[in-house]
Amino acid sequence: MTALEQLIEALKRLPGVGQKSAQRMAYHLLQHERQAMGQLAAALTAAGEQIGHCQRCHTFSETALCAICADAARDARLLCVVETPADQAVLERTGSYRGYYFVLLGRVSPLDGVGAREIGAAQLLQRAADGGVEEVILATSFTAEGEATAHVLGDALRARGIKATRLARGVPVGSELEYVDLGTIAHALSDRR
Amino acid sequence: MTALEQLIEALKRLPGVGQKSAQRMAYHLLQHERQAMGQLAAALTAAGEQIGHCQRCHTFSETALCAICADAARDARLLCVVETPADQAVLERTGSYRGYYFVLLGRVSPLDGVGAREIGAAQLLQRAADGGVEEVILATSFTAEGEATAHVLGDALRARGIKATRLARGVPVGSELEYVDLGTIAHALSDRR
Repeated sequence: MTALEQLIEALKRLPGVGQKSAQRMAYHLLQHERQAMGQLAAALTAAGEQIGHCQRCHTFSETALCAICADAARDARLLCVVETPADQAVLERTGSYRGYYFVLLGRVSPLDGVGAREIGAAQLLQRAADGGVEEVILATSFTAEGEATAHVLGDALRARGIKATRLARGVPVGSELEYVDLGTIAHALSDRR
Repeated sequence: MTALEQLIEALKRLPGVGQKSAQRMAYHLLQHERQAMGQLAAALTAAGEQIGHCQRCHTFSETALCAICADAARDARLLCVVETPADQAVLERTGSYRGYYFVLLGRVSPLDGVGAREIGAAQLLQRAADGGVEEVILATSFTAEGEATAHVLGDALRARGIKATRLARGVPVGSELEYVDLGTIAHALSDRR
């Protein structure tokens, strides 16, 4: 393989990038962004070497404790469980949550042999039993796998006497009822307040 | 900036990648494709160091002469002018051209101060006068700038007594007339054969 073919193959490993996009990216970089190629290579190498996981919440972190876990001013009574660091970033951007997080880095998927053990349920139970957590908010996705994950973890937490709640299901802000799917409207009805 | 932020900024330099895609790529790489990160970094570095331009046709090449220019079996009477190495790759994939190429690495754009000199018209004229070229095929894009480029280069070539042709304009293969734009149909009518 030539260096160009190798570059195209490597770019195809990026999510959402197929043969055509990878070719376009490679040609664009070579023709217009030679400097950016070096910067991207350096950023990838640095990220691979420096970014590990927070030992407490498992999110991406360059330090043993991430900035959130190291922040003593947050509400230690709340622990929010999310599937990925990206989900955690979304919750943080809402600015409406002041507790701590636990990042599963996965979700229960029986068909792929991924159960409660594989997503670190034991570490979560240990963390939840750990000084002062009064409520665990299960903020996994509202997909089949996310729901299964919330179900399994909720059962395990409640069995140990720990309060477990789930994000509310309902009609998205800004949407017209006419165009919302029936399952969502049914949930919004039964969870009305 | 943290290593993660630097990685996201660097990924945003890729064409068609904005903040959201760059975040998604960075999180995906860190969570699932640690190995691919190293491979992409190495491929970028290698491509930046090894890929230069063919001294004859100016396309990307790891050698002084690209594989096409070094192929003595091609038809030296034909020279095809394209805007980019990507355009050249498309023409090669059609399998219906056996001549040589000249890659402009740009197009005439008066508004941006890019004229015939900036896109290397002098080198093209020299190459076209160079042993045995009988016809220069202007295969620049059918955009305003591509047409202007073909016009400028065609005039210069013809002034030196070199035959210059343009790719045919017409109805794309597989399209229904009803949905083809009027300008294309008008061209197809006047260029009927």
